[in-house]
Amino acid sequence: MRRGFYIGRFQPYHNGHQSVLEHISREVDEIVIGIGSAQISHLPDNPFTAGERVLMITRALASLGCPFYVIPIEDILRNALWVAHVQAMTPPFDLCYSSNPLVMQLFKEAEITVQSPAMYERETLSGTAIRSRMINGEPWKNLVPPVVVQVLDEIDGVERLRQISQKD
Amino acid sequence: MRRGFYIGRFQPYHNGHQSVLEHISREVDEIVIGIGSAQISHLPDNPFTAGERVLMITRALASLGCPFYVIPIEDILRNALWVAHVQAMTPPFDLCYSSNPLVMQLFKEAEITVQSPAMYERETLSGTAIRSRMINGEPWKNLVPPVVVQVLDEIDGVERLRQISQKD
Amino acid sequence: MRRGFYIGRFQPYHNGHQSVLEHISREVDEIVIGIGSAQISHLPDNPFTAGERVLMITRALASLGCPFYVIPIEDILRNALWVAHVQAMTPPFDLCYSSNPLVMQLFKEAEITVQSPAMYERETLSGTAIRSRMINGEPWKNLVPPVVVQVLDEIDGVERLRQISQKD
Amino acid sequence: MRRGFYIGRFQPYHNGHQSVLEHISREVDEIVIGIGSAQISHLPDNPFTAGERVLMITRALASLGCPFYVIPIEDILRNALWVAHVQAMTPPFDLCYSSNPLVMQLFKEAEITVQSPAMYERETLSGTAIRSRMINGEPWKNLVPPVVVQVLDEIDGVERLRQISQKD
Amino acid sequence: MRRGFYIGRFQPYHNGHQSVLEHISREVDEIVIGIGSAQISHLPDNPFTAGERVLMITRALASLGCPFYVIPIEDILRNALWVAHVQAMTPPFDLCYSSNPLVMQLFKEAEITVQSPAMYERETLSGTAIRSRMINGEPWKNLVPPVVVQVLDEIDGVERLRQISQKD
Amino acid sequence: MRRGFYIGRFQPYHNGHQSVLEHISREVDEIVIGIGSAQISHLPDNPFTAGERVLMITRALASLGCPFYVIPIEDILRNALWVAHVQAMTPPFDLCYSSNPLVMQLFKEAEITVQSPAMYERETLSGTAIRSRMINGEPWKNLVPPVVVQVLDEIDGVERLRQISQKD
Repeated sequence: MRRGFYIGRFQPYHNGHQSVLEHISREVDEIVIGIGSAQISHLPDNPFTAGERVLMITRALASLGCPFYVIPIEDILRNALWVAHVQAMTPPFDLCYSSNPLVMQLFKEAEITVQSPAMYERETLSGTAIRSRMINGEPWKNLVPPVVVQVLDEIDGVERLRQISQKD
Repeated sequence: MRRGFYIGRFQPYHNGHQSVLEHISREVDEIVIGIGSAQISHLPDNPFTAGERVLMITRALASLGCPFYVIPIEDILRNALWVAHVQAMTPPFDLCYSSNPLVMQLFKEAEITVQSPAMYERETLSGTAIRSRMINGEPWKNLVPPVVVQVLDEIDGVERLRQISQKD
Repeated sequence: MRRGFYIGRFQPYHNGHQSVLEHISREVDEIVIGIGSAQISHLPDNPFTAGERVLMITRALASLGCPFYVIPIEDILRNALWVAHVQAMTPPFDLCYSSNPLVMQLFKEAEITVQSPAMYERETLSGTAIRSRMINGEPWKNLVPPVVVQVLDEIDGVERLRQISQKD
Repeated sequence: MRRGFYIGRFQPYHNGHQSVLEHISREVDEIVIGIGSAQISHLPDNPFTAGERVLMITRALASLGCPFYVIPIEDILRNALWVAHVQAMTPPFDLCYSSNPLVMQLFKEAEITVQSPAMYERETLSGTAIRSRMINGEPWKNLVPPVVVQVLDEIDGVERLRQISQKD
Repeated sequence: MRRGFYIGRFQPYHNGHQSVLEHISREVDEIVIGIGSAQISHLPDNPFTAGERVLMITRALASLGCPFYVIPIEDILRNALWVAHVQAMTPPFDLCYSSNPLVMQLFKEAEITVQSPAMYERETLSGTAIRSRMINGEPWKNLVPPVVVQVLDEIDGVERLRQISQKD
Repeated sequence: MRRGFYIGRFQPYHNGHQSVLEHISREVDEIVIGIGSAQISHLPDNPFTAGERVLMITRALASLGCPFYVIPIEDILRNALWVAHVQAMTPPFDLCYSSNPLVMQLFKEAEITVQSPAMYERETLSGTAIRSRMINGEPWKNLVPPVVVQVLDEIDGVERLRQISQKD
């Protein structure tokens, strides 16, 4: 049994995340997906709640063919404790997939293997770019799995993002 | 689509929880299972981490036949905010199953339907009694799903509970 | 201008508090009333929210004839910082009225004058006794100002207290 | 009985706030004034303590002719819980007055009526501009109620702001 | 270079602690002394501040003949993160001396060597017993190093303990 | 007995700090050194843990000839409480050495004497500049005491700083 950990903020979950997870699903037996900054929502850079992100991810991975866990991870605001925090909140895992320099360093100091899935991810995609498209009324639906469009419709997510991105 | 919410501390997950969840699974389309006091572990009343409890629950429900989400819920320590906290961490749900008086009151004040599954639960079972049996070397394995025994073996959970239950 | 500080949890506000505040109102120009453990509610010993307690106090003192401020004070959980915390949340005051040994010691170490209003208070009254009467269906309405009965009616406060005081 | 809620940081309380509150006082029976970021002080953008702001507001509204409550609201740092937090700290209110996009969105999601008092406010006034004038020695006293000048004198507020705005 | 870690609450620092540390000083090159529950003070079980405890310990060990560090450790309230928290606050250490069952378990799970110094400690001594003697006016000065008596005199510590131990 | 307090973040401890402390050591009997933002690490502006900074400072001052205490001070995020927080964590001190405008203002409001050691410090030195040199591979070892180079070698500190300073 080999379990891999992957963390993101998923604001929103997009095709880049999907591509990385499909890749990971071929390398491990189970995937633990951590939703970072779980307690944050309703901000221009973090518009969606943890629960909304759980829904996006779970639906998008319905046909992944690899068991996975989706775990909200609240910020602990102490980097030196973050790996222990993640480990307390998740089933045990054997390796971490990340291309974030801080995440990579923290897992490395904790002597946990890190693999960078960078090449599959973010070539053309980033949450920042997608949120910007949503705010500006530019096309974005092709950049996320269809079920994410559906979740965003249900929660009126684009309207929320536009509203909270206005200047006071 | 009808989604039900059920919360417990699951220290450990036992046959009473399983029985309630099997009952709920026949009434709703999806179940959201909240793991309460998720940040607490390594205490006599709360020995297991959220991640360990995620593992117990997920494995025990593998053949439930009803989709479910398992979500660690950290304590917010402000009862008046607790329902909003739960809602932020979970996919939207339509009703809550609980027989805990505080949980029932908080959901009632938030105008969310609460059903008490009390009759299926805890007739002979409680986490307190099971932990006591573990500490005292009395039989307990028949009180939890077999996969929970397996998880506790993997994490050496009974030994941990005994050690932290000693007097200083 | 002489301003006095008085703190309590006011769970609920009762005739003993009223009596003390009427006494204080004859000694100072303005009263600052701190509502302690403001973030706590929906617990058997602390059933009412800060906002509900603000309402009880403000209405009960409507005809006090001495200006007063009602300020929720959240717990800081560090006694050595508590006086500074109170001072940051309140208009400046010259003396503190308290018969609580910890409050008296903390203000004394901060070199703020403390007067004990003990003789006017709690001869026959305590929040604990009143909550117990509410739970057990014994008479309690004569122990609180009439407007407090009214506030408790509006928020269905006695029913809440009974519900959350039940055993799980 | 109709109660309206108005929130600001009031760093400092100025004529724009006064104008809005006078307007609101003609529409409701009671006003609940929330002091946001109550726990923050001694920063260039947030120089004054909650208690100092309570004093400014209470004095400035002495002749308002409409009952009001002034309630410090500490930041909860979880937007999805903020409305519940405000409601726990304040007497119940029927509608919220705000022109802040985030506040508007959060109350709207909580299904509480929001009215924007924007046209009365901030045409020429903002806390930012007033603090900037204080730091640079430009005229500002005509932009705030006279009693605010008095409070700032008593606490040596302008000197504090200048000192903490210096570069390290 | 071999560095040992020893943690206590030191309420107050007493001859049992001194005896253990003298023993440890003969086994390691440097000692890291953690002051637990550093943020707690002014409570009957935890009367003294971290700074007061730093002073007691440092003075009492002035002639130890082994370099030592005295580090306040605030509670993290998440046992699964506690070892990482201690490690972030202290110079790196090779082994931990403790006879506390929870501390022993947490370090064991983190794969750090734990040695129990129990036989040297607490045969006749405990902080609880010493505080009880202070409150009741029984002899206690022979149970702590002479400099601890001196620190307690300077801070009027026994009087503080008696005051805060009174019933409300 | 005259005790002076000096606080910094010491990211890393450098010759400017050393020079100031040598100067202070000639004016007081004992020095209390507070390590600010103790809970922060692994960030580009705050790369090192409190424990690592304790080690740098203690070793660098081994031959100071003046007793000193090195105390990690976690952020309290409420400026109005910060002086009380510092005082709770440290042995009592008589004056504070600081050239930071906020620190100076907070101690002044608490009526504690502040002396500015600015002229000895930071003429050519700043933590920011040293971290920048580390990241860019420019010379920096001559700007810190030799034992700091040694500590950074042991913890692979420069490599950590470079890694976490990369763009995601």
